Amino acid sequence: MRIARFSIDGTVGFGVLEGDQLDVIKGHPFGEIERSGTKIPLAQARLLPPVLPNKVIAVGRNYAEHAAELGNEVPDAPITFFKPSTSVIGPQDQITYPSFSQDLQYEAELAVVIGRMCREVPIERAADVILGYACANDLTARDVQQREKQWARAKGFDSSCPLGPWVETDISLDDIAAGIGIQCTVNGEQRQLGSTSDMVRGIPALIAHITEAMTLLPGDVILTGTPAGVGPLNAGDEVAVTIERIGTLTNKVIKRG
Amino acid sequence: MRIARFSIDGTVGFGVLEGDQLDVIKGHPFGEIERSGTKIPLAQARLLPPVLPNKVIAVGRNYAEHAAELGNEVPDAPITFFKPSTSVIGPQDQITYPSFSQDLQYEAELAVVIGRMCREVPIERAADVILGYACANDLTARDVQQREKQWARAKGFDSSCPLGPWVETDISLDDIAAGIGIQCTVNGEQRQLGSTSDMVRGIPALIAHITEAMTLLPGDVILTGTPAGVGPLNAGDEVAVTIERIGTLTNKVIKRG
Repeated sequence: MRIARFSIDGTVGFGVLEGDQLDVIKGHPFGEIERSGTKIPLAQARLLPPVLPNKVIAVGRNYAEHAAELGNEVPDAPITFFKPSTSVIGPQDQITYPSFSQDLQYEAELAVVIGRMCREVPIERAADVILGYACANDLTARDVQQREKQWARAKGFDSSCPLGPWVETDISLDDIAAGIGIQCTVNGEQRQLGSTSDMVRGIPALIAHITEAMTLLPGDVILTGTPAGVGPLNAGDEVAVTIERIGTLTNKVIKRG
Repeated sequence: MRIARFSIDGTVGFGVLEGDQLDVIKGHPFGEIERSGTKIPLAQARLLPPVLPNKVIAVGRNYAEHAAELGNEVPDAPITFFKPSTSVIGPQDQITYPSFSQDLQYEAELAVVIGRMCREVPIERAADVILGYACANDLTARDVQQREKQWARAKGFDSSCPLGPWVETDISLDDIAAGIGIQCTVNGEQRQLGSTSDMVRGIPALIAHITEAMTLLPGDVILTGTPAGVGPLNAGDEVAVTIERIGTLTNKVIKRG
């Protein structure tokens, strides 16, 4: 099942994708999903970020080849950092090139969308707290990241977390461990191509590690790291993250005048 | 004016402190404040965190003596990191000693509470976006902070951000630059004693730096750094942050059994 969040004529809601229609659901998708009976043509709705996360927790250097390309080692403990809710944008929303950076870079990532409030989740129970998966772009002001010891500005600026186009619920942790393709293109040219089977730490271990420290809420998002091939974006570029079995998240970079 | 957030008989609201009473206001305190006419004895209400921040942005090493005591230099650019909304607790709420740390430490800090949505705030306009000030404790799992390159777990665990007891609006940026006393006690013994006049970067510069990158929302909080004297907490300790002209924020440390 693919769950999208949309707006149409000033109304915001969640819907299940059925062909070229959105089957509107009552309330929210956390818990039992109840269809309202209303259908909306996908073409007429604007897709929003599929959830409004209270927090996004991202994991650094979770693909060994990407750690190596930036001259880093895979850390003993996962590197975890936050992207704030104000950084989240949806499919087709514009990425604003940050005024304080000269080196904006893309990082295609698989996003885990949390389905229920949870804390201290054991590895073997991780599947229970996951609603599904989406594409994300962990946009990074690389020069700022190198200058500033903590990454709140380098990875937390407005529009630095494109998320979408929807949440796919029909993927299992086994599927991800076996390997799902993750790709990034810029203006149609392939820049990153990896597989989730190359994650250093799997999703259950990441959830256990994070929830050892903090409570996750429905709609919170975990970004699971980017494969090798990161590189620069310029104003006017169209960047697309495609994840097998989920879909494509496309955003254009603009410079504020 | 002191604005508190409270719960009484299952109802949550904001009130203005008048002697030993809370003068309940309509809605929220962001914008024009309208009194409802209802008064509640302070003793009967439970004080909550005075705001529910969408995000807390904290600044590291903003007092030179504190940077030195941990063997660090004052950085060229401010160090900025997030504490998530799930870390925020109110006055008298319990601090849960994190299970993954053996070195929980207090850090008394002046909290700036943002009053309106803002982005790219020039230094000379900083006062316009501030609602007021509160006491905060930037609790830190020091051993985890030293082990993990980014501080999401070390400084973002549940209950790591006590905030309160209320928001004091009658303090000016000039007062803070001139110096307001900030103190931390553990079980009544003084551990930290500093003055806001010793901040390396003043609040207007911090707001400009942060909002260069990201939008702040009403109720967001900026923690402005801790003076020298940080040290450990143990289960059973009572830690109190007192800031001149604001009040005292007291919390007890417990260990989950």
